[in-house]
Amino acid sequence: MKLADFGFVEGINEIIAVTRNEDGSLNTAPIGIIVEDCNSTLARARLFRSHTRENVKRDKIMYANVIWDAEIFALASFQDLEQDYFESLEPPVLKNALSWCKFRAILRGAYADLELVDGKVLRKDIRAVNRGFNAVIEALIHATRYVILKDENKKRELKERILYYHEIARKCGRDKEKKAFEIILEKIH
Amino acid sequence: MKLADFGFVEGINEIIAVTRNEDGSLNTAPIGIIVEDCNSTLARARLFRSHTRENVKRDKIMYANVIWDAEIFALASFQDLEQDYFESLEPPVLKNALSWCKFRAILRGAYADLELVDGKVLRKDIRAVNRGFNAVIEALIHATRYVILKDENKKRELKERILYYHEIARKCGRDKEKKAFEIILEKIH
Repeated sequence: MKLADFGFVEGINEIIAVTRNEDGSLNTAPIGIIVEDCNSTLARARLFRSHTRENVKRDKIMYANVIWDAEIFALASFQDLEQDYFESLEPPVLKNALSWCKFRAILRGAYADLELVDGKVLRKDIRAVNRGFNAVIEALIHATRYVILKDENKKRELKERILYYHEIARKCGRDKEKKAFEIILEKIH
Repeated sequence: MKLADFGFVEGINEIIAVTRNEDGSLNTAPIGIIVEDCNSTLARARLFRSHTRENVKRDKIMYANVIWDAEIFALASFQDLEQDYFESLEPPVLKNALSWCKFRAILRGAYADLELVDGKVLRKDIRAVNRGFNAVIEALIHATRYVILKDENKKRELKERILYYHEIARKCGRDKEKKAFEIILEKIH
């Protein structure tokens, strides 16, 4: 079993992390898993102050879902996904996820050291490159900063970038990407 | 047979178009295939003045390769890919393409009307979202404009955008994305 089996490549892999909150409910958040050797079981993730980080600290377990759903990325950026979005709760698997992985996770400074301990490929896929999807991912990076920043100039700059990506999604994306931007635009108004 | 079978979704699908030059050699270029209904066989592509456009005008045939290879996208943006890059020449299929499609293509104004007439899925895939790959695609949009523009201010603006995406690819990408940027940066120096 190695990271590559589940869709991870060298570099930063944007996935939906699922951890368990103290009350047993599921926490979902998009995070980047940093992989140096995808033929190994070892990775890292930078975890900012967040529920994901608290849960990893307590549980030492983090699940990852490899998924291509712009709306799910947008929703999970701002809230926990409810049970309706999952096709399985144990292990936690979002509908249409391509694979899930279970990581043993140990915090070390700003990072978590991750070790792949279980996982499954659920479905393989064929899709052409879509700039609309990419635009959602880029806009989310800016939008999640936007909502925590106070500096009005920085916020204006981020908003401009987000609107630039909105144009790309409008032109190149599907309904999923357009729905994702509805969620994003609500957060920056 | 419908577009969705080969990885096309509604919106603009970035693929490598393959057409035949007058001397029988293969022309390769990344283009966007515009799909309104992926359960149909009908699509469109905007074709600017290019060898692709000339070949489509003469042959009325265009092949599409659905592929996720940043280096191939970068190379094909600036030159025709040599035979070594193909795993089949008839139909023309690049190594590691997920699928190929054959379109009947009729020019109409700035666009070509496309009708899917043949195609095959070669392999399905599982991969996590990678911002480095996306950055290559965005940078190529700007780089292909950069090389034809004369206005120094516009060129400077495009170069800034390209360097912004280079940073993302450096941080998030694999070797493939880094190689792609070597090709791109050579063109904007």
